Amino acid sequence: MVDLVSARHPTIKRLRRLSRRRSARSDEDGPTLVADALDAPVPVEEVVAERGCPEDLLDRAAGAGATVRRVADGVLARVTATVTPQPVAAIARFADVPADVAARAAGPLALVLVGLGDPGNAGTLLRSAEAAGAGAALFCDGSVDPFGPKCVRASAGSVFRLTVARSTDAADALRALSAAGLASLATVVHPGGPAYDEVDLARPVALALGSEAHGLPDGVAARVSGVVTIPMVGRTESLNVAMAGTVLCFESLRQRRRLGRANRLDAAPPQAAGCTEP
Amino acid sequence: MVDLVSARHPTIKRLRRLSRRRSARSDEDGPTLVADALDAPVPVEEVVAERGCPEDLLDRAAGAGATVRRVADGVLARVTATVTPQPVAAIARFADVPADVAARAAGPLALVLVGLGDPGNAGTLLRSAEAAGAGAALFCDGSVDPFGPKCVRASAGSVFRLTVARSTDAADALRALSAAGLASLATVVHPGGPAYDEVDLARPVALALGSEAHGLPDGVAARVSGVVTIPMVGRTESLNVAMAGTVLCFESLRQRRRLGRANRLDAAPPQAAGCTEP
Repeated sequence: MVDLVSARHPTIKRLRRLSRRRSARSDEDGPTLVADALDAPVPVEEVVAERGCPEDLLDRAAGAGATVRRVADGVLARVTATVTPQPVAAIARFADVPADVAARAAGPLALVLVGLGDPGNAGTLLRSAEAAGAGAALFCDGSVDPFGPKCVRASAGSVFRLTVARSTDAADALRALSAAGLASLATVVHPGGPAYDEVDLARPVALALGSEAHGLPDGVAARVSGVVTIPMVGRTESLNVAMAGTVLCFESLRQRRRLGRANRLDAAPPQAAGCTEP
Repeated sequence: MVDLVSARHPTIKRLRRLSRRRSARSDEDGPTLVADALDAPVPVEEVVAERGCPEDLLDRAAGAGATVRRVADGVLARVTATVTPQPVAAIARFADVPADVAARAAGPLALVLVGLGDPGNAGTLLRSAEAAGAGAALFCDGSVDPFGPKCVRASAGSVFRLTVARSTDAADALRALSAAGLASLATVVHPGGPAYDEVDLARPVALALGSEAHGLPDGVAARVSGVVTIPMVGRTESLNVAMAGTVLCFESLRQRRRLGRANRLDAAPPQAAGCTEP
């Protein structure tokens, strides 16, 4: 039996505080996302449910060691940041993973996000990257918090399943990825480099993507092992960063599928560690 | 010389009303979007500027026949729907284009959006489609208004440069596209059809995309000439509709580039009109 707690219970206050700040922890909402977190190696500490929440989800949460509490209907809509009210919210603890740990988890594909400010774009990129076989994403140089509510939601749970490093220096990230055997590629505006489908994206590769407004800083562009461009027609000047990253992730998967190594574990083994810096 | 009008001027009231409703007309904001509208064959009726607006833009608007008015700083932030206040807003009249006109403007690529409810996704799709050489988009069966403020902004001006039909019946849209010589392809969830890179997307093709929540209705899926799927790995169950559409648009462009016919005008000529329905 689970207690019904009031809107002034410390857990509810904590949830409200976490919904406002977006620091070391993050609240997340919705039955699907809570289930995703329970499936992933993410320690879910507390789960707060209203009446519409599936009972089996609460049983699973309790079985996984989370404290489960109930509140009256409408309390969560007031304390969480979701636009569409959800009948359940959870508080989970995310691990801060260093760049070298993320780099070794990349498998065939990683994202390096540099100064990416929009959480919706970041989450969308995580979702595309996971669907294309990526194992890791590194958030660098003032990028949005990957564990913030908007990014978690836009990722549709991918943020739980990828190995994510945050608050990383881009130079450190590229060094770690190079040491783990990944080539790093910067996307540049058309025309500015070889077309993405003429570049080998089937090898283990890290895709560096910059901010919506400013692209990649010069310091990063100088440290990658290569550049790619996405040829365009029409009068569009650029693609949304999430769309550009999605095109590149799926071209990487397409090239791997053609070689019969689509999955993370099928990917070519990383080269020996100790590569020189790009 | 341009008059300074008060916040109670009829134009400002009209702008506020258009920002709330999203019907036959739409207000749009930002110097870049206003310039895009002036570049495109979109009749801009009125332009309202604050101090930060570039003077040459106002000269161009006046030269194009628009009535230009000035308001005190801060008025536009109160009447328009933008999150980031912009120093200029415009009222433009959009033409309602029938499905057959849009179909004949498609060139190598068109979008058929069926019940697509999110204006950000719709705008992003228009931006990707234009960058990949599409000439037209048909908004069907309860899809969002392509000329609503959020869609226009997410399209980064592409909505002005594509031929856009709205409030179209999906069956009529597919009939018109078939008559114009385009094959129509529905996207289905993996695994459910041939992989998108094994399907001929270099021929003139219309990509049918469904709603975020429900996908394509059965009636539409039964009327297309074929299906495609985007193979995925990882535990992601689906892609965001804007990402899926972007992957398909750019695969279409990639295949056309390989054949040396990337551009709209380079595309294979449509087949003779009068094709049977798919």
